[in-house]
Amino acid sequence: MYLNISRLFFSVIEMNELGLAIIGAGPAGITAAIYAKRKNLSVRLFEKGIAGGYVADSVLLENYTGFKEIKGIELAQKMAEHAKAQGIKIEEGITVEHAKKSTQGFELELSTGEKINAKAIIIATGTTHKQLNVPGEKELLGKGVTYCATCDGPMFREKTVAVIGGGNSGITNALFLADICKKVFIIEFGSQIKADAVYLDQLQKKKNIEVLTNRKIVRIFGDTMVEGIEVENTQTGESSMIECQGVFVYIGLLPQNSIARELGCKLDKKGYIETSKEGRTTVKGVFAAGDVSGAFAQAIVAAGTGAIAAESVFQFLLEKKN
Amino acid sequence: MYLNISRLFFSVIEMNELGLAIIGAGPAGITAAIYAKRKNLSVRLFEKGIAGGYVADSVLLENYTGFKEIKGIELAQKMAEHAKAQGIKIEEGITVEHAKKSTQGFELELSTGEKINAKAIIIATGTTHKQLNVPGEKELLGKGVTYCATCDGPMFREKTVAVIGGGNSGITNALFLADICKKVFIIEFGSQIKADAVYLDQLQKKKNIEVLTNRKIVRIFGDTMVEGIEVENTQTGESSMIECQGVFVYIGLLPQNSIARELGCKLDKKGYIETSKEGRTTVKGVFAAGDVSGAFAQAIVAAGTGAIAAESVFQFLLEKKN
Repeated sequence: MYLNISRLFFSVIEMNELGLAIIGAGPAGITAAIYAKRKNLSVRLFEKGIAGGYVADSVLLENYTGFKEIKGIELAQKMAEHAKAQGIKIEEGITVEHAKKSTQGFELELSTGEKINAKAIIIATGTTHKQLNVPGEKELLGKGVTYCATCDGPMFREKTVAVIGGGNSGITNALFLADICKKVFIIEFGSQIKADAVYLDQLQKKKNIEVLTNRKIVRIFGDTMVEGIEVENTQTGESSMIECQGVFVYIGLLPQNSIARELGCKLDKKGYIETSKEGRTTVKGVFAAGDVSGAFAQAIVAAGTGAIAAESVFQFLLEKKN
Repeated sequence: MYLNISRLFFSVIEMNELGLAIIGAGPAGITAAIYAKRKNLSVRLFEKGIAGGYVADSVLLENYTGFKEIKGIELAQKMAEHAKAQGIKIEEGITVEHAKKSTQGFELELSTGEKINAKAIIIATGTTHKQLNVPGEKELLGKGVTYCATCDGPMFREKTVAVIGGGNSGITNALFLADICKKVFIIEFGSQIKADAVYLDQLQKKKNIEVLTNRKIVRIFGDTMVEGIEVENTQTGESSMIECQGVFVYIGLLPQNSIARELGCKLDKKGYIETSKEGRTTVKGVFAAGDVSGAFAQAIVAAGTGAIAAESVFQFLLEKKN
């Protein structure tokens, strides 16, 4: 009986004393938690899926400095273990449904029904890739289908790949892939590609890039690995097969900004949270880190911005105590 | 004979074609090199000392996400191996003495006498800590003497430490250490500490911090580990001993900005290179990353800013080709 009361009391104290709520346990959120904990802040770290964010989905990382080659899922596990070693519990499977200002700072409503107060928030919710939603996309993810040329491009050396999407991100990634791959197809749904002139000029100089416009992806096929794509000419209705070993999907990203919007954080025109170099958003006490803050979408960058945001929270709470 | 000519030819081409020179092979420079190389840029990476920068000097890192605990020298080696695996040669022991604009971009003069041209430069030269220059400081470095509370603070749990320097960085780090350590002395040479009001207020609330002003450090003593410091009261000339296990030196940092100054990059009032979120300095084609860019001085942050700077160089060269 005594124990129960004591536990209850502890949990009330803990709730009221919570310094920092971190939303999202990718490299940004995990690093923020590690830094916050080392500054003795009370912190809770919520993750709607599993720890690691996009890192967990990456096939192989060769650009997270210090690990010359590591599987995404392994790095995600190492990050989660690191957090645990610092005394951080990653609360997986829990979504922060709503957040609003309160007298204490902020009130957060969790998918468990629990309501908590926090003096500061770090939003590290990342982005989701817009998907093609065609047969083969999910089935061959990590088996030739990828959303990141920087991460996976070097694995397609001397191979043929298709880049889906003729916007700036599709084109710049195609230009990069053209230096590595034997042949690069760019598949664009519209009647022309929509990238900056500077990139179009570069494009014309690359002899191993072929641009196909007015093309709709019908399916991605392959037995255990990608073998090709089927595309439909939207003008003629004709279908054709393109043999390739890699499919890079660049039809857009969706920053996970619903909590930021609820809190009134200013977003840029693409929906990313506007942040200062210190990770501060336009709302006092709300910080952002990682991909959702519009940073270069790489694990090592996300981790760095997480550390910066946690340090800024520490400074913010120091000033607030005054 | 044929081989020799061919080699010479290759080396001339390579020199003229050099896309990027990176100055400094700490986590920022190494990461920048990895990212640049993966974008197929030709890159050279110069390091005046040994690879790893301050990481190599750190006793133990518990906050480089993914490694829950790693010796500084080990992480430095892993970073160097990572670079090597990506085909990057770290040119150790080579200082970039001078740099100036040229028709190609920039001309750099190395300590070897070699002159090279590069289309873009990333300055990742870091900072040096101002040192006390007292007996025991060098001898007990990493044995209780440290320049980084964020890195090493948690190792002094329940111990007594002295923070040397009563400026903002000394005070904020003392406040952080006070939550971890049994007792924290702040030793200030001047007649009063010179931190922001917000910190002074916090300071008064901490019962385990003792501020000693008008004190000059005479020496740090200890057999194999720090055992204490000798301080002189500059008013009375009296000497006294303070027992402590840790000495945190916060008397200032010196950004290594000589090349940035030569190139005309705008510096902030402390001498750090002013950079945009994308790592661009005020001089076109010159980028900065890591501590010298005024980023939060942590290895994981430096690595992240290195990746960002390399990506910006890639975009810059793409625009330039046009």
